[in-house]
Amino acid sequence: MATSPGFGRLVPPERQTKTVPPSGLRELLPQVLRPEILSFALGLPATELFPLAECRDAAVRALADPKTLQYNVPSAALKRHIQTLMASRGVACSTEQIFLTAGAQQAIHLLVHLLLSYGRQVLVEELTYEGLHLALQSLEPEILTVPTTPTDGIDLDAVEERLRGGARSAFLYTVPDGHNPLGVSLRPEDRIRLVELARRFHLPVIEDDVYGFLGYDGAACPPLCALDQEWVYYIGSFSKIFAPSLRVGWIVAPASCSTALSHLKHAGDLDISTFSQLTALSYLDSGHLAGHLASLRTEYDRRRRAMLVALEAHFPPVARWHAPSCGMFIWVELPPEIDTCELLRFAIHSEQVAFMPGPIFAIPGQACSRNGIRLNFTHWPPDRMEEGIARLADCLRRFCDPALNQKLRVH
Amino acid sequence: MATSPGFGRLVPPERQTKTVPPSGLRELLPQVLRPEILSFALGLPATELFPLAECRDAAVRALADPKTLQYNVPSAALKRHIQTLMASRGVACSTEQIFLTAGAQQAIHLLVHLLLSYGRQVLVEELTYEGLHLALQSLEPEILTVPTTPTDGIDLDAVEERLRGGARSAFLYTVPDGHNPLGVSLRPEDRIRLVELARRFHLPVIEDDVYGFLGYDGAACPPLCALDQEWVYYIGSFSKIFAPSLRVGWIVAPASCSTALSHLKHAGDLDISTFSQLTALSYLDSGHLAGHLASLRTEYDRRRRAMLVALEAHFPPVARWHAPSCGMFIWVELPPEIDTCELLRFAIHSEQVAFMPGPIFAIPGQACSRNGIRLNFTHWPPDRMEEGIARLADCLRRFCDPALNQKLRVH
Repeated sequence: MATSPGFGRLVPPERQTKTVPPSGLRELLPQVLRPEILSFALGLPATELFPLAECRDAAVRALADPKTLQYNVPSAALKRHIQTLMASRGVACSTEQIFLTAGAQQAIHLLVHLLLSYGRQVLVEELTYEGLHLALQSLEPEILTVPTTPTDGIDLDAVEERLRGGARSAFLYTVPDGHNPLGVSLRPEDRIRLVELARRFHLPVIEDDVYGFLGYDGAACPPLCALDQEWVYYIGSFSKIFAPSLRVGWIVAPASCSTALSHLKHAGDLDISTFSQLTALSYLDSGHLAGHLASLRTEYDRRRRAMLVALEAHFPPVARWHAPSCGMFIWVELPPEIDTCELLRFAIHSEQVAFMPGPIFAIPGQACSRNGIRLNFTHWPPDRMEEGIARLADCLRRFCDPALNQKLRVH
Repeated sequence: MATSPGFGRLVPPERQTKTVPPSGLRELLPQVLRPEILSFALGLPATELFPLAECRDAAVRALADPKTLQYNVPSAALKRHIQTLMASRGVACSTEQIFLTAGAQQAIHLLVHLLLSYGRQVLVEELTYEGLHLALQSLEPEILTVPTTPTDGIDLDAVEERLRGGARSAFLYTVPDGHNPLGVSLRPEDRIRLVELARRFHLPVIEDDVYGFLGYDGAACPPLCALDQEWVYYIGSFSKIFAPSLRVGWIVAPASCSTALSHLKHAGDLDISTFSQLTALSYLDSGHLAGHLASLRTEYDRRRRAMLVALEAHFPPVARWHAPSCGMFIWVELPPEIDTCELLRFAIHSEQVAFMPGPIFAIPGQACSRNGIRLNFTHWPPDRMEEGIARLADCLRRFCDPALNQKLRVH
């Protein structure tokens, strides 16, 4: 039995509830989800494109068996479908390497807790998915940043310099296809170089591939996981390609990690919902996914083009962006004097449009450039999208007009 | 930007993947879930009593709206149903105090991470739910144990002594109704005393009430949360009273914690499944829960009595147990020389029956008495249960027979 250290004090201590810094995404969610807001802020799939009837049929089939409502172990049949999906991305893996999670965020959280010990070092892109910052926070790591650009993706010279300089990073997290928030996809030669760096410096790479199935310009490049399965920890999800509310995602990792992952998953929430798993399984068994994915790609490609046309038509010439070949986002750079957090408040208030301001994706508390915004192009049909981009461009003009500025800006 | 500490080394470090100690529950799960095993090991509800048709209707109604498949914020309507359920347990709370989770295990994990900082002290019962140990592990706390007995529950003299001795425990976790694994329920006067200790020593108490709706001997005692809502953090769940696979549970906590809880939840898995939430909501809207709960209580009471009768009929007189007034478990104490982990391996191999051995519920790595076993009485109908108890009693006799012992024992 452990013994008390006996501080010998009777004064009651203060309650130790942690105060956590606010999450931008989390705070904005209720605002940008208000029905009157035309929002490009979140990575939302198109609601009207969900395979609703097929999903309902799948749920009914799954609920023919009362065991669907019971506790159970992860579905081997679902893992076999994921194995097939991975093969379509150019990745050959065994079902022993596949670990089911409650969406990609849980996969990130589990891998962070698998690979990173309290207070150790980790390499993080200067701009990256905010959910990574959240997952890191409780482990209070020493964060070493590397730049990422909307044209080239993660700066591999900077990564190599860090590693040569003696950085002992627990891992590097990146989104090689349809980068969040920058939209950029890593070139094939850079994928090879990143995997070589991972092997040479024994750097685990967490590859978040949730957008990898949404490639628009011909055949998508295989993920890092197709090049290496010793140092690459792959994350996939049905959220962007089927239905986010099922919360079904997966990890492809060395099979030797599966016990440790199970242990962490069990500590966090016992196991993935059998109901969600078996509904997803029944949907996949029905063979609808390939056709759904093809029609999603076609429609999202149309929306991507519509947003590029709308930006060209309405945004001022000082704004810059690049056409993404994959994913859900276009990153737009505004003149450096614009604070996009202020612009967002103004946009919500004056035109009821929303986007994600760049600082959301920077390391919390660190200085960052504030003039980039992330726009989602998958949620709205083209007509609503053009209307929203026009309203946002109008906001931008009024926000930048020094005469109107003082009068209109809302704090 | 954080800077590299520049260790100036080029030797690649070893991969830092954590090795986690095995979880007994987790390792046993595949074994005890094998269809040929008549298992009393897990806290499984009766599969044939799930409200399958009503749940299917609820899922179909929820899936009439495509927004059910989208990301969303937690359902306010579901919180109102939980508020009503809490009132039926004698707890008046606001919906602002209710926080939705993926089952009780996630509620435990979130509260542990809300209240406990890395390496700090925590009071833990010598025998408690194994999921608490799992949730604590990554924070590497200093554990101070207090005894709990199958007759009286947690030893409040020991708790008070610890606190008077200067223990600065981040919290105390306990199951006041239908204790896991001991089955005992805390007496009303002990509830009052525990809450007084919590207030006096500023000790947050995590009250796990997942069995509290399954009371058999007349009106159940109100939970600690009915006595105090400043220091008591309450956990409830639909897993034991509706369907575990939906993974819907809840916390009732001071409203001031809701931002921090949201933040932790978001870091872990974004949010609760909208699909599960809205299916549960639709089921609750249909008004079936009260009747289902009443029939569950009646049937589980019948099974509880059947198990007590079977134990009396088949178990040797040296075994001791107490009738639980609540929950899912009967704790049986065998003669002190019996190692119940060995007995379990023998029972699975020779009679294909299973139970949960006591050491699973002790602090990992600490010495503990090994002669108690936990039996679940809710999963099997009475005829199968009697058969299983008879087979288990037979195992026990053969396991204790010194002549057969060496020949039969399987490692």
